[in-house]
Amino acid sequence: MKAALFHGPGDIRVESADRPTLESPTGAIIRVTHTAICGSDLWFYRGDSDRDVPSPVGHEPMGIVEEVGDRVVSVEPGDRVFAPFVISCGQCEYCRKGLHTSCRNGGGWGGDNGGCQGEYIRCPQADGTLVRVPDRYADDERVLRALMPLTDVMGTGHHAAISAGVDAGSTCAVIGDGAVGLCGVLAARRLGAERIIAIGHHEDRLALADDFGATDLVSERGDDAIDRVQELTNGGVTHVLECVGATSSMETAIGISRPGGTVGYVGVPHGMGDGLDLEPFFRANVALRGGVAPVRAYADELMADVLQGTLDPSPVFTKTVDLDGVPEGYRAMDEREAIKVLVKP
Amino acid sequence: MKAALFHGPGDIRVESADRPTLESPTGAIIRVTHTAICGSDLWFYRGDSDRDVPSPVGHEPMGIVEEVGDRVVSVEPGDRVFAPFVISCGQCEYCRKGLHTSCRNGGGWGGDNGGCQGEYIRCPQADGTLVRVPDRYADDERVLRALMPLTDVMGTGHHAAISAGVDAGSTCAVIGDGAVGLCGVLAARRLGAERIIAIGHHEDRLALADDFGATDLVSERGDDAIDRVQELTNGGVTHVLECVGATSSMETAIGISRPGGTVGYVGVPHGMGDGLDLEPFFRANVALRGGVAPVRAYADELMADVLQGTLDPSPVFTKTVDLDGVPEGYRAMDEREAIKVLVKP
Repeated sequence: MKAALFHGPGDIRVESADRPTLESPTGAIIRVTHTAICGSDLWFYRGDSDRDVPSPVGHEPMGIVEEVGDRVVSVEPGDRVFAPFVISCGQCEYCRKGLHTSCRNGGGWGGDNGGCQGEYIRCPQADGTLVRVPDRYADDERVLRALMPLTDVMGTGHHAAISAGVDAGSTCAVIGDGAVGLCGVLAARRLGAERIIAIGHHEDRLALADDFGATDLVSERGDDAIDRVQELTNGGVTHVLECVGATSSMETAIGISRPGGTVGYVGVPHGMGDGLDLEPFFRANVALRGGVAPVRAYADELMADVLQGTLDPSPVFTKTVDLDGVPEGYRAMDEREAIKVLVKP
Repeated sequence: MKAALFHGPGDIRVESADRPTLESPTGAIIRVTHTAICGSDLWFYRGDSDRDVPSPVGHEPMGIVEEVGDRVVSVEPGDRVFAPFVISCGQCEYCRKGLHTSCRNGGGWGGDNGGCQGEYIRCPQADGTLVRVPDRYADDERVLRALMPLTDVMGTGHHAAISAGVDAGSTCAVIGDGAVGLCGVLAARRLGAERIIAIGHHEDRLALADDFGATDLVSERGDDAIDRVQELTNGGVTHVLECVGATSSMETAIGISRPGGTVGYVGVPHGMGDGLDLEPFFRANVALRGGVAPVRAYADELMADVLQGTLDPSPVFTKTVDLDGVPEGYRAMDEREAIKVLVKP
């Protein structure tokens, strides 16, 4: 089969690779029909994080089940499925409480399971990981495209909103105009936030935030952004969605937080240098909640909204490529030509 | 009047000072009858934090109201009162929501208000700050001694427990065997925790934690303490009370947290060097809640328990001095001879 492989910073190649095989009675083999390139893929692409060379890449899968193990009960060959960026068993303490990212039997895509930016992958825990798309929507390209962000960015934006405590009537702010931040705007609107302040630096992306339901757009940087939000809200926001994960975005987050508020953070702490200065959080009793998003826990409720037509995060895909186009997709995202790239192997 | 003044690291002197005068219609003058020395006083005493020289010290007041301004309605001369370590108006957005430490009109003891380790202090916001002790208990020394920790450490331990989400049936761990940690044990028990693991390094203090309701005592340090708690709880604790505020105690806190749990922190981030490594919190979705404790918000409910005899944090006072004994009190706390020193001017 063909798959995209990482060969070093800036070097993604589509090559032939071993097709993964079913190795356990709980597993499934999936032919990938849709996947995506993630902002977090840019870290190794840019050399900001280490990764084995060569290694298969991609962690946002959707496809058709080809083969299942004897003990799999929830899907069968021919089903359209999608899956989160982590594998989970669905049965341990953490899966039961909706924290699938801490699954005791979990794992990730890539390695022997194959990368999702490839033709086939193996899911070793099919029942606990895969989400089946109802048959009547299984070939509806518009629906599939809208479901694809549920594999990662939409669930992650939702986790930011949930972690920040957003609910009906809330005033909140979303830091970051990448795909996760934009999905955070959608999530906040879906949860009933009355005022949603989107903070970012790119005019086209803020325009999309506006489409997604943001009520205020802030394009200033650093202290100017803080001053602007403080002014807009007469002293800060109770619910902040931090969707970047950098020192500067955390400084913005605490700078715009109202005392007693909550920062819901889902940006992987990345490039935080020496660590987080907790003192301003302490002084104002601002809580820090969040982490790696258990998107499997949110998949069913978000899918219900997509299917009923009240949620559509697909506009975050501003470019579509086939498998051979994956290297070009990385380039386009790296150079910020595309917000997020959809891949159709 | 006489007051304790800070003259530099290790140098506290009891000298004559100007008696504060009533300067606003919302203020009150209090003759201090009881106060205390706080673990946080040791920072400037040890030269770990800066402070003006000379400056009045002490922030845990109890006394008799001597004089009140025209607009004060809740206390009158002769009343026995105590007050938190911060001054609050009781009327702003933050006081109304129980976050008195973010009061828009607040302030602190010391400076022109006088330090509580002195004969007289001025409270510029009497109605929003002072807590009146009911007359029938106003001269009961046993009750007053048990109420004194409500000025700071008991409210702070309670804030740790509340921030950590402790409730009936919880399993929790308390990091730190200082006065705040010990009060955290009391608070957790009061909130109905079923299992309370106290972590500290001093045998006598852990014995007090045991008296206060701890069900397990852990005296190991560093990774050994983490291993011990992990073993005791089969994988970590959902509610962690962090009552120290150092890099090492935060490392212990995340090390013993169960994924999806909460660290309630009230130790002032102090000596945290380069900042907090957020990555392990992110990975396990462990929330960080807490901050400087709004002890005024908790004073009434905690006082009710003290008066009905179901709460008595006074054993944290292991030494009592008069005003002239304040320098000796600092020495005893600095050398860990005393857990906390009660001062009776």
